[in-house]
Amino acid sequence: MQRSHVHLNGRITPADQAVISLFDVGLLRGYAVFDLLRTIHGRPFLLAEHLRRFRASAEYLNLRVPATDEEIAGAIGELLARNGHAEATVRLLLTGGISPNGMGFDPETPTFAILTHELPELPARIYESGGKLITEEHQREIPEAKTTNYLTMLRNLPRVERAGALDVLYHAGGRVSEAASASFYVVRDGTVVAPRDRVLPGTVGTFVLGLAKERYEMVHEDVSLEDAYSADEAFLTSTTRGIVPIVQLDDRPIGNGVVGPVTRDLMSRFRKAAFGEE
Amino acid sequence: MQRSHVHLNGRITPADQAVISLFDVGLLRGYAVFDLLRTIHGRPFLLAEHLRRFRASAEYLNLRVPATDEEIAGAIGELLARNGHAEATVRLLLTGGISPNGMGFDPETPTFAILTHELPELPARIYESGGKLITEEHQREIPEAKTTNYLTMLRNLPRVERAGALDVLYHAGGRVSEAASASFYVVRDGTVVAPRDRVLPGTVGTFVLGLAKERYEMVHEDVSLEDAYSADEAFLTSTTRGIVPIVQLDDRPIGNGVVGPVTRDLMSRFRKAAFGEE
Repeated sequence: MQRSHVHLNGRITPADQAVISLFDVGLLRGYAVFDLLRTIHGRPFLLAEHLRRFRASAEYLNLRVPATDEEIAGAIGELLARNGHAEATVRLLLTGGISPNGMGFDPETPTFAILTHELPELPARIYESGGKLITEEHQREIPEAKTTNYLTMLRNLPRVERAGALDVLYHAGGRVSEAASASFYVVRDGTVVAPRDRVLPGTVGTFVLGLAKERYEMVHEDVSLEDAYSADEAFLTSTTRGIVPIVQLDDRPIGNGVVGPVTRDLMSRFRKAAFGEE
Repeated sequence: MQRSHVHLNGRITPADQAVISLFDVGLLRGYAVFDLLRTIHGRPFLLAEHLRRFRASAEYLNLRVPATDEEIAGAIGELLARNGHAEATVRLLLTGGISPNGMGFDPETPTFAILTHELPELPARIYESGGKLITEEHQREIPEAKTTNYLTMLRNLPRVERAGALDVLYHAGGRVSEAASASFYVVRDGTVVAPRDRVLPGTVGTFVLGLAKERYEMVHEDVSLEDAYSADEAFLTSTTRGIVPIVQLDDRPIGNGVVGPVTRDLMSRFRKAAFGEE
């Protein structure tokens, strides 16, 4: 484990000494939510949006985040200064706290932690030439809240690697929803299409849709798996990876298999808006 | 927390000192399975069946249980002797272990724990007069493995209590599957009907179906919500509660709202077979 610190229940703690009770209901029962943001030039990107979503996830579980936005921002700043990442991801985690009988717990004593990791970087060629997704029939159980339940994603990782893919695109009932760790959008006849319903609202996705609306038609509607296969363009958005062009879905090319003009334009404008790059 | 001990990664540890890393992937990503058995007259009931299911759940996650059946049986015996419950539930828990980056982990170093709790007891009147279930549209994400994902169950507990119910019966796509913490069966025209597919195989349920087959027709088939409402009888089976007669589903009585003859017969024979009661 990296020699770094975390924030655990209000205290800065060395990462290798950061422990929770075996009776934590986040461990025993998966009763936990999180959020993940990234830094750009060392500063949290879309912090307010991530905090808003984190609080909404907590509310879905009837949990209270035991800190104000200002306190959380301060703790993040302190951790980033100590841990010295070039760029970081910052993970907020909230559980129901200790459950002596593996069932009940006191919502007044949650477990709240902030962890940082070194930002993982995709190879540059993926942004230049596009990447591949594989598909799986699956519906995230609770898309409305960002719970810690990523079992299906982790279980699929070896299959994703074997396929040379970036991620798995989930579909259920004939409709695609999102990738395991990213939002998914298609472009059809110059219109940007966002799958609607039963999808976690992506913070970067929402930011990118804002850019898209300035120049393109943008609709939220059902997207079938066939719609996805036959789209002109497709792309992912995620906190850690920004906009990632998708040029292959399973064994089929998207459009003519190269990064399309709308995706390229959005990537360029996202870099300017988020990173200040000209 | 009760003053008791747990078994954690091969060591007997006081419960209040039993801690895991904040970076455990069972906590950060819900990558964990468990099983729960009970004692009868102080001895584990259906231990072999629970161990078999626990290993199958672990295999589903590509995890290895780092102990033999004999070692686990020995550790359970030692814990039960130390903790001195009248009757206990025993929880086996296995996670992927520490994940420095919140994603990857080494399957060779899982976290493995055994916890005991005092057996919770339902009021005797429930067994005499039957209980109530409420319903919810929901499908457990991975019914094939006993994962720690019980978020929906815990989130529903206040609603269950307000309704004076015992549990929530899940249904999806027009078919009922199981209750949040128990298997569900109906009786129709003297035949015991088990909902098929997308249901976790219950250890006590399988034991009870074995008893049912000795005297009744028994089928596995689709059970619609309407089938459940209009059944002659219904009952739950669970590790901690055995056979529980269900006489009300939402606001509708099952049959004529009293414990039916097939359920009563099965309860009587289960008590004899499991507890040696005559």
